[in-house]
Amino acid sequence: MSAGAGALPRKVAIIGAGAIGGGWAALCASAGWPVSIFDTNARSAELAAIEIPRRARALIGLGRATPGIVERGLLELEQPKSLLQTVREADWVIEAIHEELGAKQRLLESVAQVAAPEAIITSSSSGLPPGEIFGRVLQRGRCLVAHPLNPPELLPLVELVPTEETEPEAIERAKGFLDALGRMPIVLRKAVPGYVIGRVAAAVWRECIDLVLSGVIDVSDLDRAVSLGPGLGWAAAGPHLTYHLAAREGGVHIFLQQLLKSFEAWWADLAKWDKLEPGQQRTLIAAIDKAYEGKLDTLRAARDRRLGGMLRALEDVRTTAREDHRGP
Amino acid sequence: MSAGAGALPRKVAIIGAGAIGGGWAALCASAGWPVSIFDTNARSAELAAIEIPRRARALIGLGRATPGIVERGLLELEQPKSLLQTVREADWVIEAIHEELGAKQRLLESVAQVAAPEAIITSSSSGLPPGEIFGRVLQRGRCLVAHPLNPPELLPLVELVPTEETEPEAIERAKGFLDALGRMPIVLRKAVPGYVIGRVAAAVWRECIDLVLSGVIDVSDLDRAVSLGPGLGWAAAGPHLTYHLAAREGGVHIFLQQLLKSFEAWWADLAKWDKLEPGQQRTLIAAIDKAYEGKLDTLRAARDRRLGGMLRALEDVRTTAREDHRGP
Repeated sequence: MSAGAGALPRKVAIIGAGAIGGGWAALCASAGWPVSIFDTNARSAELAAIEIPRRARALIGLGRATPGIVERGLLELEQPKSLLQTVREADWVIEAIHEELGAKQRLLESVAQVAAPEAIITSSSSGLPPGEIFGRVLQRGRCLVAHPLNPPELLPLVELVPTEETEPEAIERAKGFLDALGRMPIVLRKAVPGYVIGRVAAAVWRECIDLVLSGVIDVSDLDRAVSLGPGLGWAAAGPHLTYHLAAREGGVHIFLQQLLKSFEAWWADLAKWDKLEPGQQRTLIAAIDKAYEGKLDTLRAARDRRLGGMLRALEDVRTTAREDHRGP
Repeated sequence: MSAGAGALPRKVAIIGAGAIGGGWAALCASAGWPVSIFDTNARSAELAAIEIPRRARALIGLGRATPGIVERGLLELEQPKSLLQTVREADWVIEAIHEELGAKQRLLESVAQVAAPEAIITSSSSGLPPGEIFGRVLQRGRCLVAHPLNPPELLPLVELVPTEETEPEAIERAKGFLDALGRMPIVLRKAVPGYVIGRVAAAVWRECIDLVLSGVIDVSDLDRAVSLGPGLGWAAAGPHLTYHLAAREGGVHIFLQQLLKSFEAWWADLAKWDKLEPGQQRTLIAAIDKAYEGKLDTLRAARDRRLGGMLRALEDVRTTAREDHRGP
């Protein structure tokens, strides 16, 4: 198989077998792709050997994968004992270790030395500067950030954040791989701390933490309110489109005339802090633990069922709409 | 029919026939409830006469309502010529005029004078202080804010924000009515500007505007990124639950250990402005118009189909999960 643009990878190598690396592995395996995954931590590696097949097979029940293809992928899932063996013959190397700049720099320097010359190398960082992440790599043209959400095997969005030296061909190959995996890659025009998703998520979480800590609403009510209110709204139409559609006629122009004053009053009043003090952390953790005590696996499975169901619904709507257009 | 707690309203009166008032009317009519709606603006009233039946019937195609019940409700949809006629015999009066404190105060003073003594009165305000909104009403015990999202007939969440004088019975009756309409009412413990939803939405929109104006991403990419990334994620699990589930084991405690430093760096870097200057407004409006030019009706219908599909999917998941639990 050729390693050129448009081709599927002969093999995907993943370094780091935690929640994100394991999700990448489950996703690639569920597409029938050969995957090698490596973690220096023995416990992570052990867990991954159980978790990746479980997560890949769970995609079948969620209507996101086909049994035969998943099993073909899992037959070629490997956990080599060394970085060298893991990366060898891979066309795509995914870094998915913990979010620490120095560790990523050192790892990626080694990866770039042993990876095949035609391989692209992506980092799963959620917000570090791509130029610094790949700062020790000599050939940075084939390197970029490809940041998935959690869980990567279900949420379609992947932020692509190139360095200034990333070659257009590397971006195209990353997009091609992600398209083939059913992901939706979005290329940022420039890198900012947290990229797009981290910043939007941080803005939301700060305000949500503040609302809980200041006693306006409790954790489970807040979560349900965001889920069945703006969360669902944004899933159906992004923030700008939401307000463009909110005024009956005239779009966002009229919306701003009607509600900019309200937004300006709220912007002035929103949480401004940028540190969560140890006492506040303890209060927040206790409130979240109390809201969801002892049910992590059940809650995660329920979340995944909701995601699977909504993704299928969005696909059905797209398909039906296309059929409508073809009709008389 | 009794007007006590638990009973359905004999009639719902809605003052203001814009996007929100029209949505309340479509929702109540689609449940077969008699609705009277009033607007002092002749053009709004005319549009409403076309839009409310259209929106109520659209709920059938979206799987959110039953034809016979919708038509029964629409038979009893009235647009009286006066506030007095509109409010008379209603058990629930919904204020849905524009977001201006003085106008709401004056209107609600009149409404309270002519409404039946047993009627509850709710304001659809998206963020004004409930104590001030009902500041001119003598019997505030039956008054509270019931803030829906847009479109009210589709998004389930309704924020209930009582005044300090709102009687518990009025809150219970509002919850009862909303439950009967398939809404999800959430009662806030105290009022803050923008309540919960306005604040979370304002935090998101400020950051999204900033990302577009600073050239990190364009409008349509930003909207798609939020929709197919965090939007979908939050629709499946609220912000606190999302992070509680993000670390493989150990919940939010471990998540904070791993990522609080990242969040703190992002919080310090997020947009801080609280005014959108006229030049920025023009740039933003132009960018949104360009992204979605001339397609408001088509885009709104597509958004509604996505919402309808996702709501059905969430209900299916709930039903199936319950059946699983009953099974062997």
